[in-house]
Amino acid sequence: MSETEISTLGEFGLIDQLTRDFKVKNASTLRGVGDDCAVIDYEGKKTLVTTDLLLEGIHFDLTYTPLKHLGYKAVAVNLSDVYAMNGTPRQITVSLGISKRFTVEHINELYSGIYAACEKYGVDLVGGDTSASVTGLLISITCLGEAGEQDIVYRNGARDTDLVCVSGDLGAAYMGLQLLERERVASAGQKDFQPDFAGREYLLERQLKPEPRADVIAELHKLGIHPTAMMDISDGLSSELLHICKDSNVGCRVYESRIPIDYQTAVMAEELNMNLVTAAMNGGEDYELLFTVPLTEHEKVEQMKTARLIGRITKPELGAYLVTRDDAEMEIRAQGWNAFNNA
Amino acid sequence: MSETEISTLGEFGLIDQLTRDFKVKNASTLRGVGDDCAVIDYEGKKTLVTTDLLLEGIHFDLTYTPLKHLGYKAVAVNLSDVYAMNGTPRQITVSLGISKRFTVEHINELYSGIYAACEKYGVDLVGGDTSASVTGLLISITCLGEAGEQDIVYRNGARDTDLVCVSGDLGAAYMGLQLLERERVASAGQKDFQPDFAGREYLLERQLKPEPRADVIAELHKLGIHPTAMMDISDGLSSELLHICKDSNVGCRVYESRIPIDYQTAVMAEELNMNLVTAAMNGGEDYELLFTVPLTEHEKVEQMKTARLIGRITKPELGAYLVTRDDAEMEIRAQGWNAFNNA
Repeated sequence: MSETEISTLGEFGLIDQLTRDFKVKNASTLRGVGDDCAVIDYEGKKTLVTTDLLLEGIHFDLTYTPLKHLGYKAVAVNLSDVYAMNGTPRQITVSLGISKRFTVEHINELYSGIYAACEKYGVDLVGGDTSASVTGLLISITCLGEAGEQDIVYRNGARDTDLVCVSGDLGAAYMGLQLLERERVASAGQKDFQPDFAGREYLLERQLKPEPRADVIAELHKLGIHPTAMMDISDGLSSELLHICKDSNVGCRVYESRIPIDYQTAVMAEELNMNLVTAAMNGGEDYELLFTVPLTEHEKVEQMKTARLIGRITKPELGAYLVTRDDAEMEIRAQGWNAFNNA
Repeated sequence: MSETEISTLGEFGLIDQLTRDFKVKNASTLRGVGDDCAVIDYEGKKTLVTTDLLLEGIHFDLTYTPLKHLGYKAVAVNLSDVYAMNGTPRQITVSLGISKRFTVEHINELYSGIYAACEKYGVDLVGGDTSASVTGLLISITCLGEAGEQDIVYRNGARDTDLVCVSGDLGAAYMGLQLLERERVASAGQKDFQPDFAGREYLLERQLKPEPRADVIAELHKLGIHPTAMMDISDGLSSELLHICKDSNVGCRVYESRIPIDYQTAVMAEELNMNLVTAAMNGGEDYELLFTVPLTEHEKVEQMKTARLIGRITKPELGAYLVTRDDAEMEIRAQGWNAFNNA
């Protein structure tokens, strides 16, 4: 890979080069990159807006995160928030802070991941800001999406007797991080170290290249299911359940036996001598969808291929509890990832 | 000022506390902070979106920038981009990266400036992301605005014989920075140093608390003037003139004698032995509006209190030149602030 210092292109040259392959995909994108603002037109639909900040040394470690994957993930986590409102993502802006140790080729690599995510999910890049930074890489992405007013699902609509559902499986992204961390420590000081990831590819993929669950939204739509509350699982199932319970003023019972866990996640937890349920409840970064539906939708939910029933909503005074396999009740606490404690 | 570690509140506690005083001001803000996305509704108007990233050590120095001013400026520079499209800013999202040396009280101070700007310009805070950072403070703001399709002014509409206009005065923000830098150097190692800013308040205000020119947009509207091209001056007049010339495929002649410069700016340049015209042309951070209007609007433009005529648009082959007081022509070059060279 050749090495071009970013200062040789300058800010505008860099932006021109990075954005020229992004073709406009949405009729709602009237004007994209290249003016003071992008211009968007949803014609009567509602605009959704969400933003996420990823910082080197806090949210990612470049010793085991390829820049292309990082770009992809930075977009994916924003799209996930739009799907979690039952909306369709349409445009993103990308702001970068770049320290001197990064070259134009590095940033091209990062953008190739951003490009791949935009292509896959039909999203337009419409602006951003690029600057030098004193230390490290930072990525701030804002996503705009659209939704019909009646379609939008908030966090505060869960009601007593509703069913609690979750898509995919949980804990794998966290176990992927543990695996990467273990191999990083093992490799320290060794020149030709070969990390051992055989049979663990799913865990790595879940950590390095999460996919926003557009397919879950499509299946809900196909089956005519309108969730009463929904959010994506970024901090961990426990933390998100408590958000929905608090915002909806309800309680919940979630069944340990119903929490979806992949085989590789279970094997890895065993190997690392970690509690599997804790990993699934509190691991975070799964970017699965957690949602509630009225009890009357029970049969439809049972047909879903992308999600499963894990519990039910209760009156608020009953609290939020995990029902274990031996029928004990453990209070759900938010032990999710907290950037202010980790740092 | 008491000192509360940010980890005592946690991310959600901090966001709750920072955002609770922000009341919704726009009917278009259907849902603000507190869900996966904000929900916005412009009912047929077009949505404008812009974003800016401010990094400690690159864009600001906290040894002379009060946190409240920094918060205000971070919002102001985004609103300026929306006005520069002839739009009205309505919502912002605010993402913060915060290192360990900042306390809750520091971030409250920063937010008091964000709050003041939102109140003054009628803008709603609708979301964001807050994280620990390894070093320093970073602020990423995205602003949404609305505009009627016919009202939007791009950079590419300038035509031969159009008039070139600029609001306010130029170079003062740059001179304010020079002044702050001089006093910072003079204060080094001295405990009770009192910086000497007497009679230079305007320069400081221009650097520390720029105002987006909503009043210029209002005056254009009142006089029925629709600019053919417009942008805000963040990198310097030279750089922005070249943007408009390139995007519109035109040239220009701008007259040195017509460039608006405040008395304090001139005195400061003299004192620092700096070229005044260079400061005004390339200083940057003025956040004034540069716009072009058809020749037929000459009389209306002459009536403007917030802006003045500084030149004219030409055919592209005539290039972009500054006509000096002694009638020499100097080619305009972008020497504006470039974050990748400064860092």
